[in-house]
Amino acid sequence: MISWNNFDTLNVYQELMNVERVALADVMSGESGAERVKNYSVPMADGLAFNYAARPVDDAVLAVLAKLAKEAQLVEKFEELYNGAVINTGENRLVLHHLTRGQLGSTVVADGVDKRAFYVEQQEKIRTFANKVHAGEITNAAGEKFTTVVQIGIGGSDLGPRAMYLAMENWAKVNNTFKMKAEFISNVDPDDAAAVLNNIDVAHALFVLVSKSGTTLETLTNESFVKDALEKAGLDPAKHMVAVTSETSPLAKNEGYLAAFFMDDYIGGRYSSTSAVGGAVLSLAFGPEIFDAFLAGAAEEDALSKNAELLENPAMLDALIGVYERNVLGYPTTAVLPYSQGLSRFPAHLQQLDMESNGKSVNRFGEPVNYVTGPVIFGEPGTNGQHSFYQLLHQGTDIVPLQFVGFKNNQMEKDVVIQGSTSQQKLCANVVAQIVAFACGKADDNRNKNFEGGRPSSIIIGEQLNPKSLGALLAHFENKVMFQGFVWNLNSFDQEGVQLGKVLAKRVLAHETDGALKAYSELLNI
Amino acid sequence: MISWNNFDTLNVYQELMNVERVALADVMSGESGAERVKNYSVPMADGLAFNYAARPVDDAVLAVLAKLAKEAQLVEKFEELYNGAVINTGENRLVLHHLTRGQLGSTVVADGVDKRAFYVEQQEKIRTFANKVHAGEITNAAGEKFTTVVQIGIGGSDLGPRAMYLAMENWAKVNNTFKMKAEFISNVDPDDAAAVLNNIDVAHALFVLVSKSGTTLETLTNESFVKDALEKAGLDPAKHMVAVTSETSPLAKNEGYLAAFFMDDYIGGRYSSTSAVGGAVLSLAFGPEIFDAFLAGAAEEDALSKNAELLENPAMLDALIGVYERNVLGYPTTAVLPYSQGLSRFPAHLQQLDMESNGKSVNRFGEPVNYVTGPVIFGEPGTNGQHSFYQLLHQGTDIVPLQFVGFKNNQMEKDVVIQGSTSQQKLCANVVAQIVAFACGKADDNRNKNFEGGRPSSIIIGEQLNPKSLGALLAHFENKVMFQGFVWNLNSFDQEGVQLGKVLAKRVLAHETDGALKAYSELLNI
Repeated sequence: MISWNNFDTLNVYQELMNVERVALADVMSGESGAERVKNYSVPMADGLAFNYAARPVDDAVLAVLAKLAKEAQLVEKFEELYNGAVINTGENRLVLHHLTRGQLGSTVVADGVDKRAFYVEQQEKIRTFANKVHAGEITNAAGEKFTTVVQIGIGGSDLGPRAMYLAMENWAKVNNTFKMKAEFISNVDPDDAAAVLNNIDVAHALFVLVSKSGTTLETLTNESFVKDALEKAGLDPAKHMVAVTSETSPLAKNEGYLAAFFMDDYIGGRYSSTSAVGGAVLSLAFGPEIFDAFLAGAAEEDALSKNAELLENPAMLDALIGVYERNVLGYPTTAVLPYSQGLSRFPAHLQQLDMESNGKSVNRFGEPVNYVTGPVIFGEPGTNGQHSFYQLLHQGTDIVPLQFVGFKNNQMEKDVVIQGSTSQQKLCANVVAQIVAFACGKADDNRNKNFEGGRPSSIIIGEQLNPKSLGALLAHFENKVMFQGFVWNLNSFDQEGVQLGKVLAKRVLAHETDGALKAYSELLNI
Repeated sequence: MISWNNFDTLNVYQELMNVERVALADVMSGESGAERVKNYSVPMADGLAFNYAARPVDDAVLAVLAKLAKEAQLVEKFEELYNGAVINTGENRLVLHHLTRGQLGSTVVADGVDKRAFYVEQQEKIRTFANKVHAGEITNAAGEKFTTVVQIGIGGSDLGPRAMYLAMENWAKVNNTFKMKAEFISNVDPDDAAAVLNNIDVAHALFVLVSKSGTTLETLTNESFVKDALEKAGLDPAKHMVAVTSETSPLAKNEGYLAAFFMDDYIGGRYSSTSAVGGAVLSLAFGPEIFDAFLAGAAEEDALSKNAELLENPAMLDALIGVYERNVLGYPTTAVLPYSQGLSRFPAHLQQLDMESNGKSVNRFGEPVNYVTGPVIFGEPGTNGQHSFYQLLHQGTDIVPLQFVGFKNNQMEKDVVIQGSTSQQKLCANVVAQIVAFACGKADDNRNKNFEGGRPSSIIIGEQLNPKSLGALLAHFENKVMFQGFVWNLNSFDQEGVQLGKVLAKRVLAHETDGALKAYSELLNI
């Protein structure tokens, strides 16, 4: 029997608050540090490993976190979720994104449909469509092949697919699976669509319009912008557009689109990269087999999240250490720092994933909670970040826990030896150096050159960023956020906080305003 | 006489801590809100205005902040700075980036040279060079015009110039001043350089190598990567490269470069966009006149920062309200949210500018401070952020002050009317709606749909994002960071926190490691 209880009502809560703190700089020094690096590591899918040696835990803290996992019934709640319980209580919805990449538990039937079969069916429709586009069987009106795919979507329909595209683009080029360049239009700022249209050959562009409801204002506005451009170029928009939407939306079964691929209400936007939302654009860009590999990596990682043993469940472990850092140690932000240029927009995706899921002040029953929940998430790729905001991370007055990602090999198989090492070795040497610098610091009589240390981090290490490891990486963070939501007793799958702004924006556009709204509107000439 | 004192030793410190808090949701409601929007606004350069109506201040708080400005001698310290005092005490350097765009005070002579004249001379050298490139007088070995400029640099040699390039690229295209496309190589990850080189025609590319010392490892590594590629293409690297460096660096007066443009130790990397670091790439991309306009905007804004009247000095006011939010109200992060796609990387630049300048725990004399200093800075353009992390900003357990930027007009002069409004109007309506939603909130019996409000923001409003307004915007934030550093009694112009990682990375590459460093190195196959 599952109990949904607030974090601070759990028996283990006080124990966690009182467990002896770890002196990170001490335990990470000398042989003790080497031992931690060897032992504090959990295998992930596709040969990845989650290494938490430099997080502020020891066996005593981990034992309490294991109790927390058990008392909070984390894997049982995950089981409920993938077996089709109404986990998104506020919107009375199932939460089924895991089913887009595998069958973790029982068959889930909703609305009279086997949902796993439904998602697989959409993938097969996309596969057939993408193969026909690549084979030149589906073409523009002049019978010419499409060369570019442009995703029109915002939020989860943009950030995740864009980050995944960038993470695989160069790998695909080197591995000869690159089919079509992808571009993305998201912002309602008309300069966004205009700039993308300026850079492409619209006559050979296929647009993927992504809106679950078929009513997202930004997306429909950008669709009109694009249709105008197509018409002005003497082209028929209906020959250049596909839709990714729900079966009940006005975009489904609509003659204005070459095809429609379906998602449903059980997949939140920020969890939709493995659904048709990511599937259409990524299959068109790289071929359906590459998208399959991406899904396989995610499925393999999901399976690990079922493990009740904390030290064998990397997402749950990452989640609970994060809770410890947030609620016990009081750190308000977390940085995501991938040492791979391909992951340049992965932090922006995790920013949405995490902050939109767990940036909440009420529990899943709508009652205020008495503890802090999701942290602010930010990040940029290393080594770029080192020459930017790392100064604050090393010597600022606040401590920011860090999540590094690093790979032994680069994606493009081109490298150069300077001063006895390759660029890839330099990249890896930098992330190693940073972890130890943050954890151990370095005393200096000149306080301006003194490093306190005690700044925690973990690193996910892999062989190479490729479609499968990317899928595993994505699933890891999705499941981490889910487990944290369970601990905080939140509904991580709604986003009521975005509604008020939408309502007020409509009033502004309708000039139904007074007070500050009206005064600001005048300043901006609306 | 200037006194450099810690913030908490000032007489006004306790008064500031005790001043009555402002109930933001109340004062921003109804007519009071409208009045604040009208009155709490300060003109900036080029028709911009800094509107702080939704920041958590009232006349009483502002009066104390004015006392703080006076007691901390903020404009006097700025005067010292632009007149050439050694403000960067740790490195024993002047701080002269303002001189790259104007003469604010006395002539500054250093190393026997009038520094304003020196910076102007470099700009003139760049002007002549860029004009010759555009006119086809400086070409590749085959006598063909260069079509692409590629900046090779990291940190301040990358983030600022890249953000400024993106902010002007589409404006320049519409205004027929677009000369050459710019690309940027920064990361030591070899995939970064490989991907850029894949996307350009190297035979017609001009590379700008930026390194003050001429020894930055990432940059020299990427230079070698590029030279390899040029040689493999049968090209002479010396015909494709210019250097931006200091006069004493190995890159100056070097036959390996078509030209060298100089910067010096008195301009920190993160403050170098208005120096030759930004000047070369931006003048090549858009023409020297556009860079002139950018400098003119910055110069005009700098002049406003000299004003001792707090309410007439937008950067100082922004700075002091930020200090109030950070030190009195205890908010640990700040988000930068430009409602303009052109400013897509402006938050990444401000992240470096702010966090590298003020992310410090010791004062300018190397003594630990007893108060928090620079916050974590992050951000993405609106409306994209609305569909991402705004959930946490509206309903999360922490309050995050927000810095909005918005313009009445878009850059590309293309727009579309949907549901009775243009995209630009929708964009502006959204930022207005967000400000009021954050400030005022909205009560709801369903606590999940309840918005507490009381979440502060300001907005900088302009006519259009163009070179001049961009310069003003940049200078505003640079001077804001400077004033905050003065209040916190920091040296905002060094970055000792980046050193330890460099030292350890070298040890890793030399295999001179033990303990955790060695263990991590093994995991990453170094």
